[in-house]
Amino acid sequence: MHQFLDAVAAIIGSAHLLTQPQDTAPYTLDYRRRYQGRPLAVALPGSKAEVAALLQLCQLQRVAVVPQGGNTSTCGAATPDTSGRQLVIGLGRLNRLRALDTANNSITVEAGMTLAQVQQLAADAGRLFPLSLASEGSCQIGGNLSTNAGGLAVLRYGTMRELTLGLEVVLPDGQVLHQLSALRKDTSGLDVKQLFIGAEGQLGLITAATLKLFPLPTAHATALLGVTSSQAAIDLLSALRQAFGDRLTTFEIMSQACQQLLEKYHPGQLPFIQPWAVLAELSDSGDSHALQQKLVDWLATQDIADGVLAHSEADRQQLWQLREAMSETQKRDGASIKHDIGVPSSAIPAFLAECETALTAAFPGVRIIAFGHAGDGNLHYNISYTRPDNAHLFEDEDSVNAIVYDQVYRHQGTLAAEHGVGQLKGHWLQRYKDPVALQLMRSIKQLLDPHGLMNPGKWLSGSGD
Amino acid sequence: MHQFLDAVAAIIGSAHLLTQPQDTAPYTLDYRRRYQGRPLAVALPGSKAEVAALLQLCQLQRVAVVPQGGNTSTCGAATPDTSGRQLVIGLGRLNRLRALDTANNSITVEAGMTLAQVQQLAADAGRLFPLSLASEGSCQIGGNLSTNAGGLAVLRYGTMRELTLGLEVVLPDGQVLHQLSALRKDTSGLDVKQLFIGAEGQLGLITAATLKLFPLPTAHATALLGVTSSQAAIDLLSALRQAFGDRLTTFEIMSQACQQLLEKYHPGQLPFIQPWAVLAELSDSGDSHALQQKLVDWLATQDIADGVLAHSEADRQQLWQLREAMSETQKRDGASIKHDIGVPSSAIPAFLAECETALTAAFPGVRIIAFGHAGDGNLHYNISYTRPDNAHLFEDEDSVNAIVYDQVYRHQGTLAAEHGVGQLKGHWLQRYKDPVALQLMRSIKQLLDPHGLMNPGKWLSGSGD
Repeated sequence: MHQFLDAVAAIIGSAHLLTQPQDTAPYTLDYRRRYQGRPLAVALPGSKAEVAALLQLCQLQRVAVVPQGGNTSTCGAATPDTSGRQLVIGLGRLNRLRALDTANNSITVEAGMTLAQVQQLAADAGRLFPLSLASEGSCQIGGNLSTNAGGLAVLRYGTMRELTLGLEVVLPDGQVLHQLSALRKDTSGLDVKQLFIGAEGQLGLITAATLKLFPLPTAHATALLGVTSSQAAIDLLSALRQAFGDRLTTFEIMSQACQQLLEKYHPGQLPFIQPWAVLAELSDSGDSHALQQKLVDWLATQDIADGVLAHSEADRQQLWQLREAMSETQKRDGASIKHDIGVPSSAIPAFLAECETALTAAFPGVRIIAFGHAGDGNLHYNISYTRPDNAHLFEDEDSVNAIVYDQVYRHQGTLAAEHGVGQLKGHWLQRYKDPVALQLMRSIKQLLDPHGLMNPGKWLSGSGD
Repeated sequence: MHQFLDAVAAIIGSAHLLTQPQDTAPYTLDYRRRYQGRPLAVALPGSKAEVAALLQLCQLQRVAVVPQGGNTSTCGAATPDTSGRQLVIGLGRLNRLRALDTANNSITVEAGMTLAQVQQLAADAGRLFPLSLASEGSCQIGGNLSTNAGGLAVLRYGTMRELTLGLEVVLPDGQVLHQLSALRKDTSGLDVKQLFIGAEGQLGLITAATLKLFPLPTAHATALLGVTSSQAAIDLLSALRQAFGDRLTTFEIMSQACQQLLEKYHPGQLPFIQPWAVLAELSDSGDSHALQQKLVDWLATQDIADGVLAHSEADRQQLWQLREAMSETQKRDGASIKHDIGVPSSAIPAFLAECETALTAAFPGVRIIAFGHAGDGNLHYNISYTRPDNAHLFEDEDSVNAIVYDQVYRHQGTLAAEHGVGQLKGHWLQRYKDPVALQLMRSIKQLLDPHGLMNPGKWLSGSGD
C-alpha cells in the first residue's frame, strides 16, 4: 500500500495524510463509542479538486473510502471497519464560505464547515439558518446533508433536505456533479442532487452546498407547560398552530419519568412535575414583549395544568437547558437502549400507550424515557431496567427493538427519524422497509458505485447488514 | 393490436377504454395547441391495482405509455406522439381522498384529484394546502408532482416537492412502490420517492400522494405598489421579508409594458402606471384589519412611488384579477415567444437589463413583457415584435431563445423554472445543463425503464430532443 499512500500524499500534501495511530485515533472511534475502526490512513483534502483526484485514485486502485464530517454520527455511519484497508476522508479542511447572498436569502459553504459556523455567518448577515441540533458546535454541513439532519426546528423549517437549494458532489469515479444552484424553482430535468441527501456517503462525496436563509426572528416567547396526558400535549400542539400559525417553531415534550430524572440530577430546576411537560417556542419579527403577552393571554384561555413563561433571554436559556440536559441526565443514570423513532404526530398518544403495554408485558419492571420533537412526530424513546439490576440490559436489546419497531410500523412510523441508519440499524431496515423501495436503493447504489467503494460496511452495501 | 386492447379492456372495463377519435380528442391536443398527437387508445383506470396491471401488460407487450393528468402542460409533456402506438393513461378516475389527518397536518389523495379539490378539502378542515397556480381548477395532483409545480406561494411554502411527504408509484414493470408516509422526519434509507417528483412521468406513474397542510390564514393584507426600478422592487422584497418575516406569502412583479397592456384591454382598472408594479400579500392568523394597518404603517416609512391597499376581500380579489389577467391580455395582443425562466432573486435587475440590451441589439423593435414570481426568482419573459409586423415571429424563436437562455445561464438561472421541459425544451436542456447531471439522469432512466416505455418522445428519451 506504500505506493497508494505516496499517491495520496502527492495529491493532498504529506502533512495532510495521517497514518500513525495517535494521529488517526480521533477518526476511528464513533461518537457513542460503539464502533472502533482501524483505517488504512486518514486523508484531509483541502479542495474539491483534491477530493476528485482522491476518489479517482481510489476507484483505480479499488480502495474503499469512508467520508467523515464532525464524527458525531450516533449510528456508526462515519467509522471505518477494522480491516485496515479503508481510507477515511475527513472534510474539515473544506470549510470555506463560497457565497452569501442576502437578497436571495442563500449561502454557499463547503461541506466541512460546522453547523454553528453557518448559523453564525447567517446571523451576522441578519439572517437565520434554522437547522439546530445538540452537536451543532462540531457536526459539519456535509454530515448534516448525508443524514438529512432534523433537530429542533423541523416543525417550522423542515429537515436539511428542505433547507438545501444546491449541491456539489464528487461521484465515486471522480467526476464532479455541479448543482450548486441558488434557485427556489427549477424544473430543468431530474433533481439528481436529492439522491445524495440522506445517503450517508454511500453514493458520492458532498463537497459544498447552497442553503436557504430566512429572516432572523427578533422576538421569542418560550414557555414550559404541564399537561395531563400525551393526548393533551398533541391537542395543545394543534391549538397553538391554529392560534399562532408559523410562529410556532418548537414543540418538545418530556414524559413524567424524564422530569423525575431531571429533578434527581438537577434538583429544584424544574418548576413542576406533571404527566407531560411541553417546551413550546414562538418566533417572530417585532419585539419579544408583545409576543410574550399574546402567548400569556392565549394560555389564559386554555386548560393547562401548570406552566412558566420566559420573561427574559436568561429565563429562555434556562428552559432550553432543561431540555438539553436530557441526554446527559440519562447517561448519568446508567445505560439505556436508545431509539430515534418517528410516527405521525397524531399517532403519538396511541403509540406511547400501546408500546408501553407491549414492553411492560415482556419486561415487567421496564423503565421508558420518552421525550423529543413531538411537533414533527420524532421521539427519543429509551429503555432501561428490562431486568431489576440493569447490568445485562444489552442482552435484551434485540427483543426490545423488535417490540418497539413493531409498534412504530403499526403506526406508520420510522425506525430512523433523524439519526440515519449507519452500521447500527441495517438489519432492522431490511425487516421493516418496503422491499420494492429497498431493491430500488440497491439498484441506485450499483449504478453509482459499481465497485462498492463508497462507505462500505454500512446499510447499503452487501447484505445491508 | 386488437388482442392488446382486449387485454386492456379486461383490466379497466371496456367503458373506460376510449378508441374513437371523438372520444380521445380531449387527450391528444396539448393546452397551448402546439402538439397534436394520435394515440393507440386512451385508458382510464379506476384504481392503483388497475394501473399496476396496465403497466405490467404494457411492459410485456412493449407498448409505450403516456400518463396524463389534467392536460394543462405548457410544454407538451402529456401529449402522445403521432405514431398511433402510444397508450395514453388518464388518471382522472383515481380521484379519491384516502386520508385527512388534521392533527398531523397531512392529507392523502389519489393522483387524479384536481388541485382545487385538494385546496377545498383542506379549507373545509380549517387547513391550507398552499400550492396555487392558474390552472388549479383542472390540473391534477399527479401532474403537479410530475412537474414539481410552483406557482404563487413558493416564496413562503416551497414547490410541490417541499409540500410532499409521501408517494405511491407504480414502476414501469408494474411493481408498486409504497412510500405513502405522513412523516416529517425519516432517515430510514434513501428517499427514493424524490426521483419521481419532476420526472414528467418518464420513470413511473404516481397514483397517490401524502401532502403537507398548514394552518389556514385568517388575515390577509394585499397591496399593489409602484416602484421606480426592478432594483427598487428587489430591495422592497428584502425589506418586506425583514419586517414581516414569513407573513410575506406572495411577491409578484409586472413591468411597465405589462401595465400598459392591462390598461389597453382593461382600461381604468389599474390605479397607476409606474416603471414596475409589485403585488405583495401578507397572510397571518388573527384578523385582517390589524394586519392591513401594520402594512399601511410600515409602507408610510418606505420610499414607494405609488400604491393601493385592499381594504376588503372584494378589493383583494380585484388586485389579484389584474395579476391573473396578464396571460389572457397578452394572448389578445398577439403571438409571443414565451419563457419560464428563473434566476436568483438578487440577479433579477442585472438579468433584465442585460437581456434587454442583448435582445434589442439583435431585434431593434423588440417588445419584452416581463412579469412573475420575483419572490422566488421565477419570471415569465415573453417576446414579440422581433420584426415590425410580428407575423413571422416564430421564425426568430431559436435566435430569441439562444439570447435569453445565454443570459439566464450567465446569471446562474434555469430555462425551466416551474413548467417543466416536456417536448418543448429538450434540445435546450442538452445545451445548457451540466453534462454530468444529464448523464446521471439518463442512467437513472435506463435503470428504471430499460425498454423506454414511460412517456417516450419527451426530453429524457433517446437524444433528449
